[in-house]
Amino acid sequence: MTRPSAVPPPVTAVLDASSRWLPARLGEVEDLLREQGRDHGDRLGAEAAATLAAGGKRLRPLLVLLCAGADGGEAAVRAAAAIELVHMATLVHDDVLDDAPLRRGLPTVAATAGRDRATAVGDLLFSRAFALLAAHGDAGAIALLSRASVALARGELAQRGDAFDSGVSEQRYLDRCRLKTGALFECACLLGHDTEALGAFGAEIGLAFQLLDDVLDVSGPPERTGKARGTDLLDGTVTLPLIAAAQADPEILSIDLRRLDAAAAERLCDRIAATGALERVRTRALQMVTAAKQKLNETQFDAEQKHLLELVADGVVQRYS
Amino acid sequence: MTRPSAVPPPVTAVLDASSRWLPARLGEVEDLLREQGRDHGDRLGAEAAATLAAGGKRLRPLLVLLCAGADGGEAAVRAAAAIELVHMATLVHDDVLDDAPLRRGLPTVAATAGRDRATAVGDLLFSRAFALLAAHGDAGAIALLSRASVALARGELAQRGDAFDSGVSEQRYLDRCRLKTGALFECACLLGHDTEALGAFGAEIGLAFQLLDDVLDVSGPPERTGKARGTDLLDGTVTLPLIAAAQADPEILSIDLRRLDAAAAERLCDRIAATGALERVRTRALQMVTAAKQKLNETQFDAEQKHLLELVADGVVQRYS
Repeated sequence: MTRPSAVPPPVTAVLDASSRWLPARLGEVEDLLREQGRDHGDRLGAEAAATLAAGGKRLRPLLVLLCAGADGGEAAVRAAAAIELVHMATLVHDDVLDDAPLRRGLPTVAATAGRDRATAVGDLLFSRAFALLAAHGDAGAIALLSRASVALARGELAQRGDAFDSGVSEQRYLDRCRLKTGALFECACLLGHDTEALGAFGAEIGLAFQLLDDVLDVSGPPERTGKARGTDLLDGTVTLPLIAAAQADPEILSIDLRRLDAAAAERLCDRIAATGALERVRTRALQMVTAAKQKLNETQFDAEQKHLLELVADGVVQRYS
Repeated sequence: MTRPSAVPPPVTAVLDASSRWLPARLGEVEDLLREQGRDHGDRLGAEAAATLAAGGKRLRPLLVLLCAGADGGEAAVRAAAAIELVHMATLVHDDVLDDAPLRRGLPTVAATAGRDRATAVGDLLFSRAFALLAAHGDAGAIALLSRASVALARGELAQRGDAFDSGVSEQRYLDRCRLKTGALFECACLLGHDTEALGAFGAEIGLAFQLLDDVLDVSGPPERTGKARGTDLLDGTVTLPLIAAAQADPEILSIDLRRLDAAAAERLCDRIAATGALERVRTRALQMVTAAKQKLNETQFDAEQKHLLELVADGVVQRYS
């Protein structure tokens, strides 16, 4: 399995379109993230640093910086690094819970260092996020980020609580996604610029992002997503593609997810795709992005800033499509 | 196995000796902790609330309140609740890593709700700690607590890295304890009153606390400690009693900890005890407490406040002795 391309489409598009300040600011975020992986001595540095270096889309830092604008300064860079640290902490913990072998096409911390060290690495990344903000007295940012972290944990718990329950309602699924994903995108925007419209924009594109993620889990291709098709199904996570597919093919609900193996999960993915559910969910995600972009008209941002945020919004649903 | 007594000696002694403000303030901390377990809907509340209600010595909140003094006010109560939330988050995660069935004589979250939910419950308690402080703009407290949380995670990682290594040095063990336990006791004192002498007092009694904890793991009795003897050994955690015992009985180092079962672990506990190592480690802990109490003379505290802190210091090494 090859690694997904290093620089993902949304970031590339925004960087191409942006004025000169953004790439430099993103570079400062990377420097700060690298610093967080250092100075821990021991073998810890290696694992935390590898997690941070493994990259990813850096969508949340990008949102922080774009919402803060060209005058965002050092506080925006710190907030951007802190939110990525929290995001990565949750990814490391998720991989512990799921016993996931791969993330972004690379072995997970849980797989290489063991579940126990991975739990502690996650705790460390989480602590570093708040320590970084606290060291500079960024009290407002800490308030936003800790509130979002509470939502993340609630979302994770809700998802675990619903595991292997094919009867999960669409509403319940959407509520879960708002907690698990929407809250951190919302937080990213608010960290940049704390207004209701921007928060709503972030929450909505976060939701769209999660819907598309759930489509990609079913559609693959694995060489782009960096993980096997049907990974969510094997974990018992019921997502909108399955819920939507069951409306056309109700017998899907009688499949016992606990008894799936990798081959059966792939067959179930094909069956979901055959109902047209993936297109329907993708359309929902696109509608959410459209609604989110309209929220930007309620902000005082100039045309360029709006344009860049629109590119990010488009980007979250254009991955691998 | 019966549950350990609800109100532990150090707290009882301090409450008996204290003026009227302390019990009321501790009650406010309990109220605040109960509140943190609420308002999450779902099944989450139950698990978080049960964790918080299961009690414990509340030593760290007690230190915050005592160091803050009678005029500590609401900020001290919040800091006391927040540090207990972080402490509990780490306990819940520790129990996940150790697959521990019991904590304080009660089933762990990991045992009743599963490792996956327990990881998320820990994350939630952790997030709530920072959210609580951030909601009131307690920036200084957040800086102290996040720094201590980084130390905790580093200590946990160091301990996991050393697992099953009988050759761990005394220095390495002490460094680990300073991170894993000392840092949060130090933080508790600093949250109450931020001076170097109080921080040193806290770090030192935290270290003594950990030494005694490690003695109790070997000595039991299980009906007082709430867990089986030799639990650390079964987890591969090499502590000072074993290191000290090996100085008198070097063949102990040739025992492969990975191959221990519960009965063999109890026999190893007996063998450690037979060397007199437990008394030597207990003496070290008492010396640390004496050194810690001398630090109090460098503070401006009045005789009563010093006396109460001395009672806590004595208490950490008087458990079940």
